[in-house]
Amino acid sequence: MKKALENIRILDFTRVLAGPFCTMMLADLGAEVIKVERPQEGDDARSFGPFVGKESAYFMSINRNKKSICLNLKNRDAIAVIKRMIPKIDVVVENFRPGVMDKLGLGYQELRKLNPGLIYATSSGFGSTGPYSQLPAYDLILQGMGGIMSITGEDADHPIKVGSSIADIFAGVFCAIGILAALNHREKTGEGQMVDVSMLDCQVAILENAISRYFVSGENPVPIGNRHPSIAPFATLHTASGFLNIAVGNDSLWEKFCQLIGKPELVKDPRFVDNDSRNRNWDSLKPILEDVLRKETKENWIERLQAAGVPCGPINTIADVVKDPQVLHREMIVEIEHPVAGKLKMPGCPIKLSETPASVEKPSPTLGQHQEEILCGFLGLDREEFERLQNSGAF
Amino acid sequence: MKKALENIRILDFTRVLAGPFCTMMLADLGAEVIKVERPQEGDDARSFGPFVGKESAYFMSINRNKKSICLNLKNRDAIAVIKRMIPKIDVVVENFRPGVMDKLGLGYQELRKLNPGLIYATSSGFGSTGPYSQLPAYDLILQGMGGIMSITGEDADHPIKVGSSIADIFAGVFCAIGILAALNHREKTGEGQMVDVSMLDCQVAILENAISRYFVSGENPVPIGNRHPSIAPFATLHTASGFLNIAVGNDSLWEKFCQLIGKPELVKDPRFVDNDSRNRNWDSLKPILEDVLRKETKENWIERLQAAGVPCGPINTIADVVKDPQVLHREMIVEIEHPVAGKLKMPGCPIKLSETPASVEKPSPTLGQHQEEILCGFLGLDREEFERLQNSGAF
Repeated sequence: MKKALENIRILDFTRVLAGPFCTMMLADLGAEVIKVERPQEGDDARSFGPFVGKESAYFMSINRNKKSICLNLKNRDAIAVIKRMIPKIDVVVENFRPGVMDKLGLGYQELRKLNPGLIYATSSGFGSTGPYSQLPAYDLILQGMGGIMSITGEDADHPIKVGSSIADIFAGVFCAIGILAALNHREKTGEGQMVDVSMLDCQVAILENAISRYFVSGENPVPIGNRHPSIAPFATLHTASGFLNIAVGNDSLWEKFCQLIGKPELVKDPRFVDNDSRNRNWDSLKPILEDVLRKETKENWIERLQAAGVPCGPINTIADVVKDPQVLHREMIVEIEHPVAGKLKMPGCPIKLSETPASVEKPSPTLGQHQEEILCGFLGLDREEFERLQNSGAF
Repeated sequence: MKKALENIRILDFTRVLAGPFCTMMLADLGAEVIKVERPQEGDDARSFGPFVGKESAYFMSINRNKKSICLNLKNRDAIAVIKRMIPKIDVVVENFRPGVMDKLGLGYQELRKLNPGLIYATSSGFGSTGPYSQLPAYDLILQGMGGIMSITGEDADHPIKVGSSIADIFAGVFCAIGILAALNHREKTGEGQMVDVSMLDCQVAILENAISRYFVSGENPVPIGNRHPSIAPFATLHTASGFLNIAVGNDSLWEKFCQLIGKPELVKDPRFVDNDSRNRNWDSLKPILEDVLRKETKENWIERLQAAGVPCGPINTIADVVKDPQVLHREMIVEIEHPVAGKLKMPGCPIKLSETPASVEKPSPTLGQHQEEILCGFLGLDREEFERLQNSGAF
């Protein structure tokens, strides 16, 4: 089947998470992604556990559908090889610290001379400009600096980091949007450009109502657990078998909810008559609701509440998620055969296209797996050149 | 200046957050976004506080750069007007519950007859297919069902929702990628298609190492606060003036860190000699570090640690973020003049393009502000038709 991005060829210098997540999405959608790795070690993520045999499950899950070649970026011949590839490349992606590619002779200003239509995308902690540009970046540091930690948690004394590396992941996702937008512009004009995405910028962009609330009210938002600032009940509550999330957004849902849990008297209770009262008196309401909810399992409550149209759901663990009927129906867990590690399950692509569906067709490459295919086949080096490069330490 | 997506026209039926966030990004990048709203009330988010005068700051912050027209989707004439627009539209985006657009006569199968190149994007809680397709969706419910809550928080007894609505936001962002990929395919083939994105699928896609860890080890991940599962020190620590995040990823950084905090003896301490020991003995190490760190402010520590190359940073509140020098340098806080609400600050666009920069040029539209421009100008209705539609209740 045709793929949406099958006309796009990407030279991918990225490591670990933000960049590889970006190019994984583009590869799932059909782009040819040629991953350039250090000889011997490869992408740092190849050493992140847990392992299947000697293969990193982490690496395999975000580098599927890509090709791998090894090049030593400190070797002049290797740099020359890359420059010979650039005219036939649509997009370069890298997530080194700003300035590194320039020092290697592979910065955007250099590469655009070889291909004025090139899209050069860089993803970094703080962006390629500005006072923090050279600071080291880790997801935890960026979640802290970007504000999301200050509004996540039970209260202001216990700020919490999001459990997955969303500072990296958001940078990868926004970078993909930038690349695709730049490709649209190139299609019309032939003009390439640089896409510069930072983890910090992306964290600011996803703060949602926190920023507008702060500017309008002057109040600095703090974590409020799982509650909603102005809706109640909107909470995580205990049942006989674990947590239940409920979101009772209006009075008619509230009435349904009270009937269903066998507490019709709450509807008339002056403390809980409308959303505003329920919100103000939440500390009295919560234990009343939990007393009832603890009498049955969350599964029973969910079945009955969903049937009545009350928004609710469990807090699924990872083990629950990967066997959830909707998740499986949507093909969000895919299995792929890796030549070394064997069968491996990982998340699918969440972008569902009717005519050019994304797919996970190829496992992550072993280190340098496509060395000859790319250097001899695609670039057209002859056997002699290939061996000369090998002997010179280019790979 | 030219914009990357200035050739793209979007008819936008979305409300509240996921869909509007998607079309905001596309509008920032230059697409013409025509937002179709209910007469009188408009997008639900227009009623979300806080307000500036009568204008919702929340609505304004995610609907800048768009145009607004009012159409009553229960009125036959209004549906006919939409169908007359479709041949001149590149992308339709909607985030109704699956099936709603079909019932209105505006489903993808109907609209593609009028424009085979149309991209029809739908963003919903659970996707347009599958057993949960018709369930009501709120961000809290999806964060619970998608697994992120089960790995966010201090421990398994206190699962925490991310402080911004990332289930909505990720759906909006992935949907934008799907639209742009589909546009690339249309450019080559003329063929349109449906983009179907669900909040649940997107939550699964961002679980990162949790899924591979689970499949490989069989262990179900639980929240571990702000720690790293295998690196120490990687933590949030108390100082004299608030929290400090540090990420000391290897032994050489550990040595620098110990020197700098005046605790060189820790380097030789057998409990802390390598990462593995530090990780195992973290409960002994943490209080030792906090005793020292509490003697100075986080600002002092950060200055010294950054100078030494130790990854670290504060937990910025929203008030800190919006005045941070890097955030300001990157133009991530923009100010715009709204005709009714006056000057308003909001996050900028995190996708920085060198030749076709995104920008926030126009404030969010007032309800129906572009009724005549779009219906008479763009669609070409004459005065008589416009008035007939108005009188028939189409708007």
